[in-house]
Amino acid sequence: MGILVQKYGGSSLASAERIRAVAERVIASHRADQPIVVVVSAMGDTTDDLIKLAQQLADEPDDRELDLLLSTGETISCTLLAMTLRHMGHDAISLTGAQAGIKTDTSYSRARIVSVDPSRIQRELAAGRIVVVAGFQGINEDFDITTLGRGGSDTTAVALAAILKSDLCEIYTDVDGVYTADPRIEPRARKLTEISYEEMLELAHYGARVMHSRAVELGSVYGVPIVVRSSFNQNPGTLIHGGMSMEVRNKVRGIAHDTDVAKITVLGVPDRPGIASSLFQPLAEANINVDVIVQNTSIHGVTDLSFTVSRTDVNRAMRIVEPIAREIQAADVVSASDLAKVSIVGTGMQHAPGYAARMFKALSDRQINIEMITTSEIRITCLIDAARVADAVQGLHEAFRLDQADL
Amino acid sequence: MGILVQKYGGSSLASAERIRAVAERVIASHRADQPIVVVVSAMGDTTDDLIKLAQQLADEPDDRELDLLLSTGETISCTLLAMTLRHMGHDAISLTGAQAGIKTDTSYSRARIVSVDPSRIQRELAAGRIVVVAGFQGINEDFDITTLGRGGSDTTAVALAAILKSDLCEIYTDVDGVYTADPRIEPRARKLTEISYEEMLELAHYGARVMHSRAVELGSVYGVPIVVRSSFNQNPGTLIHGGMSMEVRNKVRGIAHDTDVAKITVLGVPDRPGIASSLFQPLAEANINVDVIVQNTSIHGVTDLSFTVSRTDVNRAMRIVEPIAREIQAADVVSASDLAKVSIVGTGMQHAPGYAARMFKALSDRQINIEMITTSEIRITCLIDAARVADAVQGLHEAFRLDQADL
Repeated sequence: MGILVQKYGGSSLASAERIRAVAERVIASHRADQPIVVVVSAMGDTTDDLIKLAQQLADEPDDRELDLLLSTGETISCTLLAMTLRHMGHDAISLTGAQAGIKTDTSYSRARIVSVDPSRIQRELAAGRIVVVAGFQGINEDFDITTLGRGGSDTTAVALAAILKSDLCEIYTDVDGVYTADPRIEPRARKLTEISYEEMLELAHYGARVMHSRAVELGSVYGVPIVVRSSFNQNPGTLIHGGMSMEVRNKVRGIAHDTDVAKITVLGVPDRPGIASSLFQPLAEANINVDVIVQNTSIHGVTDLSFTVSRTDVNRAMRIVEPIAREIQAADVVSASDLAKVSIVGTGMQHAPGYAARMFKALSDRQINIEMITTSEIRITCLIDAARVADAVQGLHEAFRLDQADL
Repeated sequence: MGILVQKYGGSSLASAERIRAVAERVIASHRADQPIVVVVSAMGDTTDDLIKLAQQLADEPDDRELDLLLSTGETISCTLLAMTLRHMGHDAISLTGAQAGIKTDTSYSRARIVSVDPSRIQRELAAGRIVVVAGFQGINEDFDITTLGRGGSDTTAVALAAILKSDLCEIYTDVDGVYTADPRIEPRARKLTEISYEEMLELAHYGARVMHSRAVELGSVYGVPIVVRSSFNQNPGTLIHGGMSMEVRNKVRGIAHDTDVAKITVLGVPDRPGIASSLFQPLAEANINVDVIVQNTSIHGVTDLSFTVSRTDVNRAMRIVEPIAREIQAADVVSASDLAKVSIVGTGMQHAPGYAARMFKALSDRQINIEMITTSEIRITCLIDAARVADAVQGLHEAFRLDQADL
């Protein structure tokens, strides 16, 4: 039997009592013939607490220092879980990201995994141990500690599942699985029993916070079956897989929303070739993810260019964009942070053009103005007023009858 | 000018405000022509808090896991200090014990430094950076994190000072320096301006908690001048040095006391060769420090053998000694934890036999019973009732006129 990889999130490990419950769950799922690797996040609010401490001492803490600081959160939880497992009579060992062989690039605070050397994990598994790995962290070629950014522990888990050729990667969190919409906003939201990597990728990227898109992407590339489920009950969760058995359903599968959106607009941009690249190249180099980009039709050789970034990046992005805007003789740069994205996601949507129209109608029926629109093969996203998000999610959930079971 | 090594203890780093104060002190002592390496302990009660958390989950947390857990305390404080220095406009970098090249053996929780590879520190110093090193931790040949046990951060600082051939190792703590006795017990205790390694070693080993004996020993072996001083004021502190300029003073220099004492007595031991080694060899192998050893005169081929260990080791020691006692057909094994050690320390004492007599008289004048006696070349130690420690220290301080200035 192949290796089982489990990942437990911060809320599942928030107290000594919960760590004990996780240990019991690990033991219960550990069969004699199946080695097990457990990846853990930092306990509860540890990461936020460490960030607050750092910000008391430095307005903008150095990235390298912050990464080494934050990595301690996962190191603490992996040692505590390993101790607990040993105390319960099961041989276990904790490994830091570096010890687990997670090699990354040097982009502090959002490092990418370059390679994984599984030899230490394999040695410990061969010795009959449960291996507990600190998620979210790795080591770069300078022997410095890096962190993987948002969703980092999920990424660690899927990367280990891929390199260890696991049968299954279980992501334990505080929700039962992937829902048709956020149940806190739409009470009639329904849990999906399965979803394809591509659909999950779009849902995750566009705001369904169950799992980070990076980890789903990695799962998709290496064909790792992922189950998202709750550590607080025995419900079966949602299977994220390659969808070999799925027909193209031509159906909306879920509604995502994301309020972590800031819009930057460069006004009065001379419409010359190379302008877009002169703006977006430096942002990419600063590791700022630019999402939706919209350029107005040029009037008299001048255009407005809008794009979105995450709210945490907006100040950094403005500092990069403002001098460039002056250089290219744009009229002005403005930013707004009162926006949100709502998205409908579903494989096969691109073959049925009626979906966009239904989405726009559902929003306009509720008097919700659309600021910007962007689409992918399996997703349509609208930028709207952040105050109207709940309304929009509920309206779309109803319009696409997502409260009704599949098939 | 040589490299300056400074070490700051946990109480000096207990809050964001104090870390800021330490950063200011580091900057103030950093001259352009003198590279500086700063070694830090964990903030305030961090280590104790982590131990408590571990003990909630496992009665006897695994040593390897506990070491990795505890190492996070120093990692946190070194990153915070480095961030603060950078925020104040000084280039700084934090290094874990592993990154600083501290290689140890595999004795978790009390690892010994095997070697130090200073290349990373030297590279960072050459780049003009203030280097902040996490004290108390190292890495063993299995790439696992170890901690150095009590006084570990002092040991890190002196080891780095030795390998970097520093002019001076400053140990910043919450007291002004080395006193003739603990000022909390003897208000007339006087700060010493200088003391020899040997005297400090005896004082430290026998309970003066200003600095751990391991670090002093290392300083002595490598000839590193050490200054112990307070991080809360500008007082000059106490210089610990090789004493080249000191004459043999034939004088008691200080009184140490230690209440971390447990006595184990093996009763009715058959007086055969090899008995002592059969008892103490297994204790040494278990890394338990045995201190005072006293064996009664043998009567009818049977003797009682008493020795002391630290209170944290007493249960472990009893579990080792009890089966051996049965094997060698001893009558019984008993332990007691209500004892304390008081010591007088001073170079040249061995040439003046009157000191022992004066010590015993001072104790008997106060009706304090002596349980065991042990001596070194520059120290006389008496085991007494723990409840009488303050009395004993005050009596000895008075008897040897330690409130009066040297010379």
